[in-house]
Amino acid sequence: MTKVIKNGTVVTADLTYKADVLIEDGKIVEIGPNLSGDEELDATGCYVMPGGVDPHTHLEMPFMGTYSSDDFDSGTRAALAGGTTMVVDFALPSPGQGLLDAIQMWDNKSTRANCDYSFHMAITWWSEQVFNEMETVVRDKGINTFKHFMAYKGALMVNDDEMYVSFKRCAELGATPLVHAENGDVVAELQRKLMEEGNNGPEAHAYSRPPEVEGEATNRAIMIADMAGVPLYVVHTSCEESHEAIRRARTQGKRVYGEPLIQHLTLDESEYFDKDWDHAARRVMSPPFRNKKHQDSLWAGLQSGSLSVVATDHCAFTTDQKRYGVGDFTKIPNGTGGLEDRMPMLWTHGVETGRLTPNEFVAVTSTNIAKILNCYPKKGAILVGADADIVVWDPAREKTISANNQQSAIDYNVFEGQQVKGLPRFTLTRGKVAVHDGEIRAEEGHGEFVMRAPNTPVNKALSTWKELTAPRRVERTGIPASGV
Amino acid sequence: MTKVIKNGTVVTADLTYKADVLIEDGKIVEIGPNLSGDEELDATGCYVMPGGVDPHTHLEMPFMGTYSSDDFDSGTRAALAGGTTMVVDFALPSPGQGLLDAIQMWDNKSTRANCDYSFHMAITWWSEQVFNEMETVVRDKGINTFKHFMAYKGALMVNDDEMYVSFKRCAELGATPLVHAENGDVVAELQRKLMEEGNNGPEAHAYSRPPEVEGEATNRAIMIADMAGVPLYVVHTSCEESHEAIRRARTQGKRVYGEPLIQHLTLDESEYFDKDWDHAARRVMSPPFRNKKHQDSLWAGLQSGSLSVVATDHCAFTTDQKRYGVGDFTKIPNGTGGLEDRMPMLWTHGVETGRLTPNEFVAVTSTNIAKILNCYPKKGAILVGADADIVVWDPAREKTISANNQQSAIDYNVFEGQQVKGLPRFTLTRGKVAVHDGEIRAEEGHGEFVMRAPNTPVNKALSTWKELTAPRRVERTGIPASGV
Amino acid sequence: MTKVIKNGTVVTADLTYKADVLIEDGKIVEIGPNLSGDEELDATGCYVMPGGVDPHTHLEMPFMGTYSSDDFDSGTRAALAGGTTMVVDFALPSPGQGLLDAIQMWDNKSTRANCDYSFHMAITWWSEQVFNEMETVVRDKGINTFKHFMAYKGALMVNDDEMYVSFKRCAELGATPLVHAENGDVVAELQRKLMEEGNNGPEAHAYSRPPEVEGEATNRAIMIADMAGVPLYVVHTSCEESHEAIRRARTQGKRVYGEPLIQHLTLDESEYFDKDWDHAARRVMSPPFRNKKHQDSLWAGLQSGSLSVVATDHCAFTTDQKRYGVGDFTKIPNGTGGLEDRMPMLWTHGVETGRLTPNEFVAVTSTNIAKILNCYPKKGAILVGADADIVVWDPAREKTISANNQQSAIDYNVFEGQQVKGLPRFTLTRGKVAVHDGEIRAEEGHGEFVMRAPNTPVNKALSTWKELTAPRRVERTGIPASGV
Amino acid sequence: MTKVIKNGTVVTADLTYKADVLIEDGKIVEIGPNLSGDEELDATGCYVMPGGVDPHTHLEMPFMGTYSSDDFDSGTRAALAGGTTMVVDFALPSPGQGLLDAIQMWDNKSTRANCDYSFHMAITWWSEQVFNEMETVVRDKGINTFKHFMAYKGALMVNDDEMYVSFKRCAELGATPLVHAENGDVVAELQRKLMEEGNNGPEAHAYSRPPEVEGEATNRAIMIADMAGVPLYVVHTSCEESHEAIRRARTQGKRVYGEPLIQHLTLDESEYFDKDWDHAARRVMSPPFRNKKHQDSLWAGLQSGSLSVVATDHCAFTTDQKRYGVGDFTKIPNGTGGLEDRMPMLWTHGVETGRLTPNEFVAVTSTNIAKILNCYPKKGAILVGADADIVVWDPAREKTISANNQQSAIDYNVFEGQQVKGLPRFTLTRGKVAVHDGEIRAEEGHGEFVMRAPNTPVNKALSTWKELTAPRRVERTGIPASGV
Ligand SMILES: [Zn+2]
Ligand SMILES: [Zn+2]
Ligand SMILES: [Zn+2]
Ligand SMILES: [Zn+2]
Ligand SMILES: [Zn+2]
Ligand SMILES: [Zn+2]
Ligand SMILES: [Zn+2]
Ligand SMILES: [Zn+2]
Repeated sequence: MTKVIKNGTVVTADLTYKADVLIEDGKIVEIGPNLSGDEELDATGCYVMPGGVDPHTHLEMPFMGTYSSDDFDSGTRAALAGGTTMVVDFALPSPGQGLLDAIQMWDNKSTRANCDYSFHMAITWWSEQVFNEMETVVRDKGINTFKHFMAYKGALMVNDDEMYVSFKRCAELGATPLVHAENGDVVAELQRKLMEEGNNGPEAHAYSRPPEVEGEATNRAIMIADMAGVPLYVVHTSCEESHEAIRRARTQGKRVYGEPLIQHLTLDESEYFDKDWDHAARRVMSPPFRNKKHQDSLWAGLQSGSLSVVATDHCAFTTDQKRYGVGDFTKIPNGTGGLEDRMPMLWTHGVETGRLTPNEFVAVTSTNIAKILNCYPKKGAILVGADADIVVWDPAREKTISANNQQSAIDYNVFEGQQVKGLPRFTLTRGKVAVHDGEIRAEEGHGEFVMRAPNTPVNKALSTWKELTAPRRVERTGIPASGV
Repeated sequence: MTKVIKNGTVVTADLTYKADVLIEDGKIVEIGPNLSGDEELDATGCYVMPGGVDPHTHLEMPFMGTYSSDDFDSGTRAALAGGTTMVVDFALPSPGQGLLDAIQMWDNKSTRANCDYSFHMAITWWSEQVFNEMETVVRDKGINTFKHFMAYKGALMVNDDEMYVSFKRCAELGATPLVHAENGDVVAELQRKLMEEGNNGPEAHAYSRPPEVEGEATNRAIMIADMAGVPLYVVHTSCEESHEAIRRARTQGKRVYGEPLIQHLTLDESEYFDKDWDHAARRVMSPPFRNKKHQDSLWAGLQSGSLSVVATDHCAFTTDQKRYGVGDFTKIPNGTGGLEDRMPMLWTHGVETGRLTPNEFVAVTSTNIAKILNCYPKKGAILVGADADIVVWDPAREKTISANNQQSAIDYNVFEGQQVKGLPRFTLTRGKVAVHDGEIRAEEGHGEFVMRAPNTPVNKALSTWKELTAPRRVERTGIPASGV
Repeated sequence: MTKVIKNGTVVTADLTYKADVLIEDGKIVEIGPNLSGDEELDATGCYVMPGGVDPHTHLEMPFMGTYSSDDFDSGTRAALAGGTTMVVDFALPSPGQGLLDAIQMWDNKSTRANCDYSFHMAITWWSEQVFNEMETVVRDKGINTFKHFMAYKGALMVNDDEMYVSFKRCAELGATPLVHAENGDVVAELQRKLMEEGNNGPEAHAYSRPPEVEGEATNRAIMIADMAGVPLYVVHTSCEESHEAIRRARTQGKRVYGEPLIQHLTLDESEYFDKDWDHAARRVMSPPFRNKKHQDSLWAGLQSGSLSVVATDHCAFTTDQKRYGVGDFTKIPNGTGGLEDRMPMLWTHGVETGRLTPNEFVAVTSTNIAKILNCYPKKGAILVGADADIVVWDPAREKTISANNQQSAIDYNVFEGQQVKGLPRFTLTRGKVAVHDGEIRAEEGHGEFVMRAPNTPVNKALSTWKELTAPRRVERTGIPASGV
Repeated sequence: MTKVIKNGTVVTADLTYKADVLIEDGKIVEIGPNLSGDEELDATGCYVMPGGVDPHTHLEMPFMGTYSSDDFDSGTRAALAGGTTMVVDFALPSPGQGLLDAIQMWDNKSTRANCDYSFHMAITWWSEQVFNEMETVVRDKGINTFKHFMAYKGALMVNDDEMYVSFKRCAELGATPLVHAENGDVVAELQRKLMEEGNNGPEAHAYSRPPEVEGEATNRAIMIADMAGVPLYVVHTSCEESHEAIRRARTQGKRVYGEPLIQHLTLDESEYFDKDWDHAARRVMSPPFRNKKHQDSLWAGLQSGSLSVVATDHCAFTTDQKRYGVGDFTKIPNGTGGLEDRMPMLWTHGVETGRLTPNEFVAVTSTNIAKILNCYPKKGAILVGADADIVVWDPAREKTISANNQQSAIDYNVFEGQQVKGLPRFTLTRGKVAVHDGEIRAEEGHGEFVMRAPNTPVNKALSTWKELTAPRRVERTGIPASGV
């Protein structure tokens, strides 16, 4: 059984050209003019692009005895509805829990996935067991990325010395560390001070996590990665301060990637000043939304290449869950949705405005991250042999975003009311049509785990350079010497 | 008659993978395992990469009644010997000469080319004729790039108002302006001052063109391009000051490209202080070589993406020609060779050290410029359908660079004595083997002109953005109004 | 006849302390506790500060057959009313007019001044006569500053080569060049384009002079000054782009000063979008007002010392004069008032908010510029021996700014309706009380010309450094040499 | 008994003028022409400048059961010999020791001082006692500066949360925090790694404390100070990375001061590669010496004002003490001398070269720090009423620095062999001549403690601004609200 996408324009990170795409057994088998197959998908007027890869989701994430409300079923369904065909979730060990044990838990949850997925492994505490299991995670489990939280003091946060040794371990294993970059000590103090002053509403969440706090942590993580000799990936870069640290590092030839979220690109801090507590609380995430200055910075980063990837940090909580934090903003669960809206929102605000080319759109939603995570060109490509994870994008299709007709399990949408232009006509996950002219035909459990090998070219090059420039001992005779 | 490159590892700007490459009629027709063809080229232990594209050469360039000494024959032979399979030369009208007339002259010279080539069109004066012919150049002649000299006062230099209107014209035509960025007024004054003070040796050439002068002009060209609403390509970015201006522009989302030369990446200003006048004079080019601080800046630019392309500005003069400037450094013809050495030098100092990945090497020597100039994937790609401009790169092959065995027609080499590791085993130009295991089999006249269409995705996106953000008139009634 | 200022707190750029100030013959003769004099001025609750120095005014400036409407009488009366006791005006030669001739014209006008004053000499064209007269201007006329216009093409504008030679001449004479930094070529092209598009209202004035155009010219002037080996003073720094260029230069140890205007610190571009043509046209000045981002930049510059001086560029035109530009914004005379409001506005928005300390207020309104212009401590100081140019500042005094009760001759005020807190109780010009508890007692003709000698410590230090690091000739024998 | 300094040129941070200076009872009582007194000091050909203030010394500092070898006697004698008339030492509580207790210990040692002195209070641990005693230190003990070590893990180092609360406490008290900025966690890991690799020589000290580690900590301290709403003073700013963080903060209007040491301005890292272990070990201090790029950065910082003060971190250990670290560089006591050489070295490399004006020399060696520490104009001024802490500087006097004729108690000098031009003819401490034409006449115990009050104008202005811009609670009714 073959499928062919007919009459479309292939758009990749590199190229734009007219061609049909033939699919068999979940893979692209031919690209060219006048192809035919058992089933035809008409792409007239559409762009045929690699399906999106969202490297930052928290599906069914444990939280205070319950879970974030989108699981691997609804979450990946939302992804497919919006043209995203792969998600990367974070396996989070509890304090004292082994890495392999945590992966087992995530494996259990992910059996319901509608699209392919992978995991980042989080380092939430440090021990010899963690050190040892990191090797198994990389060698056997197909995971080459390790997440570190610089915030959430008393919970997920790791200290500088732990980060250094973990980064060093990543360097040895050819893996790449990721950081949630906010100074957790300072956030905790600001939270305490705000609560003391009676500032307990959701706007205080934003006050407690100012851009300076994120910029500082980003800068620190970059230094530690540099000392450890390993590339670094900074998740949810939300502000100029953090972006500046990344740019400055890159200007010095350091290997650092930044990931803005679609929320920070398009929504701003005024949401937290809404008179409706629910409205504000639903937007609570870390880092919080910023102002226009920061948005401009993030867009320019995508244009110039100092930022590499647009993600969502999809972590959906219902209004009821958000209300745990009435009277104490520090108890509002952190997270917003976005999986279904990332690509239409980015197309509308990025490509339609001329800020991004269609090729750059593909690069930042799919190809760049597939390369960084080392699953390119299995993912992120329209190439013969690649997985048929494809979105047929209709640049003329429009809709108004609304919670009423979303895939996500929650009862609101932070983009509610936004008019978008540019939506999937079809989304294919390994050749299976999951979105068909707007209709969702996703299949629970269809998704497979994507193994990702270590030692990307960038890891290898950096190691070579670090060896070449390593400290050299001065050879001396007669120590101590004569002197004066 | 088909050819197959067997047993190699394909390395592109994106990817590294084992595959054979099948060639027919000058094109790549298949890429995959176990291919066979009429002729086999053994690539065991080698990387199969897109042939280099050098976007900056001056072959047989008119100069004081004579010509630069490498013409389209020896120049393109040198290119192929070093793995470069396409050059882009500058068609330079004399003051008052029409653009089409100049192209005709360059067409005549380029018939001898051993590899494919294209032209940039230089705007060396301004008139209605020039304005009008620009359209023909773009629409009919397949040229989408226009060069502007901000230096060489009294000769090639254009003023700011001319640059603005020419850039504006580029914007209308979907073309991209290039600049030689040095403040010609200040250079002329510094030259006069140095000569007055008796500073007439080749080192004074460097003194007369300090980094500040290049940085200023780069910054100015960027502003003018921004006002005109057009992307900008800055040739021979040699220093931190110029690079800083480019980085700053990119940080603001501006569409600006920088092109360091292999000379500036690997040679420094101390060459001009050599006690041997000939040694110093042979290195005279504009901009001059800089110091290590600037080299570090350029390398980091390649690593981070703030600089896009490595070129040569190949413009070869013999020692006899250089000696025109004995007693007056301003008369030393500006230019050095580099076509044969660009890729081996960059591999040695870039990839071997770990500064660049092999993929980044391909990007900056070939793929990036092919995209910028809009001849990708005809050039710069290992893809089915692409021209078979291929270099089979042997990373273990070594040599010492020497004028004794170079293709260039001149009697010295600025890289004389440099040990390089990483050299072509084969170079193919549209399927023809021009270098065969070190032996040159290039064919004069084999090269063809490469047409390049306007309106790249970047040009289009920028135009969209500029329209969206254009000044809007304030509607007023009763002008002037009441007041106070 | 002595005067004593009693019971006040002396505030200088350095210090805050309780003391009385005794004045005789126009000079400060004693500072200390419990002084007495023939006349007492009660400064209870007040700060006793050096009178303001405004280094940038255009009084009775020739314009299209008429003059700017504040002359040396009304202009200096406005100055005194606001606590400013010295102004520096620009002597502007017409094209072809000699420098000394222009000074003569300005000498004639300034006889009416109510407070002391000095001149900057403008270089509006270049010739041997200009070159020669510059020496006389410095040696005999007591002027050590030369203004250069990089805009106003076809009128005041000088080109880069003229600027270089004039700056060089300044270096020889120990003088300091000033620049009006906007790229005149590009402004002219933008003006033409806007008019062509029917964009002829005052908002188009702002569109024709974007921050990029100012930043570019500032950057260029800095480079030229660096090449010429002379400090540089940039007038009316209005935007981040220009400020960035100044900061970057200073970061490299260059000697560059920036001067924001009180207008740019407190008013923004929205003024030009007012539906009332008169309202908008009255705010037309070059550079135009900017947005909040730029204001934040300027304030931070004053805080950190990267900007040195707050001025006004006072150049007042009546509404009738502004209306010359109905239907053609390029004909609206450029300029606004500000002399009376500079200090109250800066105190209100600077000191009251905590952005500036009272000492910094004195520094940026008076002391810094007195040092830069080399008339400190005659001006800008509360020291024994200094001129008794003193403002007794009442931080509790408030008013609403209005054209109805201003000293300026024009019929509106760009700060109309602004509430200020902090106003002079007394202003003394060389001991004479010109403002007495709000009442104006200025005396036409009281003002004297302030001679300013060349060769400030900064000029001298820079010359030493430039000599030390000047290009050195490489000594060679046998030129050309053996080679290879 | 009066003294008069005759025939000299007074040079202050502001001014240069001919005047005599009359002294009585340790104070300046008159400045002017033709003064006479009981004793005359001839300053013909000399500059009469405020004596130097060195804000960073460690005299008789406890270390591994012994002490740094210069105590308050030899240390202040060295200071006076070099023109420095006040030192500020660090009172360092042991872990668990109270602040007042530590001050008592320092009071005991300082009774031997030859010149005036003050203390910074170090916060080396945190508790309610420390919190409470900070108030007493400020109110009663005349100390308004609190030092925090971000390095020396396991000893003096404080963590981010401790720093935040301590900085916050400083803000409440109107005091200013100081930081030793290096990331102690990373330094400790780098030390361990280097020792493991057998890198145990003094060069490894430099390897273990790279500029990145200092830059990071500086950046972090700045963020924490900003969050706490307090100015920050960064001691021993040694590198571009740290300076960049300071500049960036200042560019945003933050109140941050940087203090380069004379060692980092004039010596470089090559000292650590000396084949003589003793030579290298004697230069071990933290941060270590850097390369020329960093030196250029520091000089430019002094020129532009982004760095404020030149200090020494004088902490002298004999060669025998240094040899504790043979075989383990982490045991080499950190510290070098400099008190006697700071001013001559800075004059020679700063003023003689033209990098600094004589006024700037006074500013960075004396006046700026006196203002920052709030003891101006008692110190740092040539004003009537100021302490007669004066250096009569002979710009023509030369010497070669040598341990053979130094005041310091140690057996070597890191500036050994340096030729300096510019030396004290006389140094006066509160009117007492301590250096008389090269002869040392210092008097043990003459020195007095200098009380320094809190709430400088900068502290006050920053507090005002922080209140004005503090987070504001959003008032809401009916929480949670309707929603969607
Ligand atoms: Zn996070
Ligand atoms: Zn997350
Ligand atoms: Zn050129
Ligand atoms: Zn060229
Ligand atoms: Zn102007
Ligand atoms: Zn003006
Ligand atoms: Zn320290
Ligand atoms: Zn110290």
